[in-house]
Amino acid sequence: MAVRNVFYAQSGGVTAVINASACGVIQSARAYPDRLGRVFAGRNGILGALEEDLIDTSLESDADIAALRRTPAGAFGSCRYKLKGLEENRAEYERLIDVFRAHDIGYFLYNGGGDSADTCLKVAQMGERLGYPLQAIHIPKTVDNDLPHTDTCPGFGSAAKYIATSVREAGFDVASMARTSTRIFVLEVMGRHAGWLAAAAGLAHEQDEDAPHLLLLPEIPLAEDALMERVEATVQRHGYCVVVVSEGLRTADGQFVAESGTRDAFGHAQLGGVAPRIAERIRERLGHKYHWAVADYLQRAARHLASATDVAQAYAVGQAAVDLALKGVSGRMVSLVRKTDSPYVWTTGDVALEEVAGRECPLPREYISEDGFGITPACRRHLAPLLEGEDYPEYVRGLPRYVRLAGHRVPPRLSKAFKIT
Amino acid sequence: MAVRNVFYAQSGGVTAVINASACGVIQSARAYPDRLGRVFAGRNGILGALEEDLIDTSLESDADIAALRRTPAGAFGSCRYKLKGLEENRAEYERLIDVFRAHDIGYFLYNGGGDSADTCLKVAQMGERLGYPLQAIHIPKTVDNDLPHTDTCPGFGSAAKYIATSVREAGFDVASMARTSTRIFVLEVMGRHAGWLAAAAGLAHEQDEDAPHLLLLPEIPLAEDALMERVEATVQRHGYCVVVVSEGLRTADGQFVAESGTRDAFGHAQLGGVAPRIAERIRERLGHKYHWAVADYLQRAARHLASATDVAQAYAVGQAAVDLALKGVSGRMVSLVRKTDSPYVWTTGDVALEEVAGRECPLPREYISEDGFGITPACRRHLAPLLEGEDYPEYVRGLPRYVRLAGHRVPPRLSKAFKIT
Repeated sequence: MAVRNVFYAQSGGVTAVINASACGVIQSARAYPDRLGRVFAGRNGILGALEEDLIDTSLESDADIAALRRTPAGAFGSCRYKLKGLEENRAEYERLIDVFRAHDIGYFLYNGGGDSADTCLKVAQMGERLGYPLQAIHIPKTVDNDLPHTDTCPGFGSAAKYIATSVREAGFDVASMARTSTRIFVLEVMGRHAGWLAAAAGLAHEQDEDAPHLLLLPEIPLAEDALMERVEATVQRHGYCVVVVSEGLRTADGQFVAESGTRDAFGHAQLGGVAPRIAERIRERLGHKYHWAVADYLQRAARHLASATDVAQAYAVGQAAVDLALKGVSGRMVSLVRKTDSPYVWTTGDVALEEVAGRECPLPREYISEDGFGITPACRRHLAPLLEGEDYPEYVRGLPRYVRLAGHRVPPRLSKAFKIT
Repeated sequence: MAVRNVFYAQSGGVTAVINASACGVIQSARAYPDRLGRVFAGRNGILGALEEDLIDTSLESDADIAALRRTPAGAFGSCRYKLKGLEENRAEYERLIDVFRAHDIGYFLYNGGGDSADTCLKVAQMGERLGYPLQAIHIPKTVDNDLPHTDTCPGFGSAAKYIATSVREAGFDVASMARTSTRIFVLEVMGRHAGWLAAAAGLAHEQDEDAPHLLLLPEIPLAEDALMERVEATVQRHGYCVVVVSEGLRTADGQFVAESGTRDAFGHAQLGGVAPRIAERIRERLGHKYHWAVADYLQRAARHLASATDVAQAYAVGQAAVDLALKGVSGRMVSLVRKTDSPYVWTTGDVALEEVAGRECPLPREYISEDGFGITPACRRHLAPLLEGEDYPEYVRGLPRYVRLAGHRVPPRLSKAFKIT
């Protein structure tokens, strides 16, 4: 078997552990020098392939590659860029093949969420249709946890741990202040269409008084009167009320509560700011003083509070992608497979990309309490193991040390530049 | 010397380590059973004294008291309530003395910031003027770090560590996304009149590319044109720009950029929401896509990322307050005294409450870079040691275990209730 090079890239919103997947890919590939060539990382995802802007990871030290395991965000740069269909933009695919051929790339490992799985699938199909031998394998990643056919998505467990911990801490804070000051605290978390992160916040609610008292999930349209009734009852009972709201919360007519009007490259609306709206509405109707927080990128970048389980899974899916490559597999996504809940025993598996691409997996109704404001015991059993264990970064002078790679560019071999449209 | 009881209470905004001070007080007092009686904690600060709502800490287990050291927020409840002058509301002071006399309280230990120091001073003066023997000692606490005559305020170092870590992590995130998506990230931090927390974010900026690139401090009026110029230059240079803005940022005419119109019990305006305003203004003028975060209570409650130095200092000031009580001192605040910067060697001292009460200590001009958008090496030398060391809580099933005390109420001895006005 000819030794061919590996292309690896990061796509979509980054996470606290996507670099752990990169670490898994690169360390595993380095272990097979007789079967795999160099790992070239695309700078800024698929754009790096289109623009022939490849990073030669073989020039990074073993120590720096090891440090990726504890460094948040995308060390090679990510992108929000969706390939069109082969018929719509054939030039893009021809360009990809030109670049892959020029650099003898036989493996395309793409690390992302549902939209990225679609890109990976298109690349796999392109290889077949245009007669270029290429194995395309997808490595799952998304804080939203919305990919089907996998027990969880790397990145989710750490964001979930951050959110559940933060809302527990904020709950203790508000409880202290409630007598003369703040009675309402609203925390906004990510989750455009799926309430997994807001549901994870619910893990902090173990006893009646524990925050969060109410979850507002994108799966359940906002019922304002019911919300106000529950907020007031909670304030009467405990003196304060903590609400976690998903950025993707919608009204009964399907509008985002916090539509800001701009759209990203995938055509998704940019959200943000639902927490202050909910808080202000509570003050208007019930008169309570409030505080609110919007964690935004802090929640998905919080490597300082990573779940050890999540880090291990992120590394394992990178490693498994290399194993699949060595087995000659293409057009599949690495998945995580749960064996038992408690103790949480898992392994990696794989699934056809057609089953994953572009599909979103919301919180199942049986994970949401009947009233819509909380999670069920089944949800708790499913989510709790994903947050288990702490995996702390190294600190230097009080701050975490994260690695920034050298990022040496592979000398381009094509004379033509490619214009991204 | 008669064995008299100790009153301890928490006041103002709580922090990740104010309970470590409570732990220092209670553990130290328990070590002198022949000289100090029981420690009664006021439920919700001074209100607990006025309402004769005292918590008997002697009924809490040693293990629970020890757990206070790693539990955020105010275990006994805090308050925002300012005593009026003796002439204006004599009834309040007479009530305090009635309650203290009924429970044989000889020591008043008050744990708070500048406004609370004023309350503590008034209580000290009341004891003298109304002829009730009482030693009033203040224990410093504030995330804002704005008390004079102390090297730092417990609570600040941990919030600073959280903010500097979070902005470093978010900076890595934005750097990954900047090519096709978010180029601007704005993080809002606390600091009504003093920019210490925003300045601490600046510690994460160690090399030219490192976030945060620009700080907007309450000490420096917003110069919008200069800001836009610097943001654009940073985007041109690094591809993205991270801004940290203090909630107390003001315009040139002295207005808060994010005045929300409501006021707390101290008469302070309630702030929040300056980050989205700055982010939107950047988009309007420069066209860059943005994200923003408002950490709010998350930053001051983040016990999961406490500075070990801060925890040690918080404990030490509680311990020192008991030592001062045993020495017969009254009308003073425990302070922290720096001996050397590196290694950071410190001890506790004390200062007259008249020197502290109601005074706020902003960031000195020599700690702010000439252009107003950053910190100086002197500031860095001063702040860096305060973040040093990690002091992690215990985790159970993936979440931090924090203690909620039993909070047994001391049986009231007065027949009269007291109406808080």
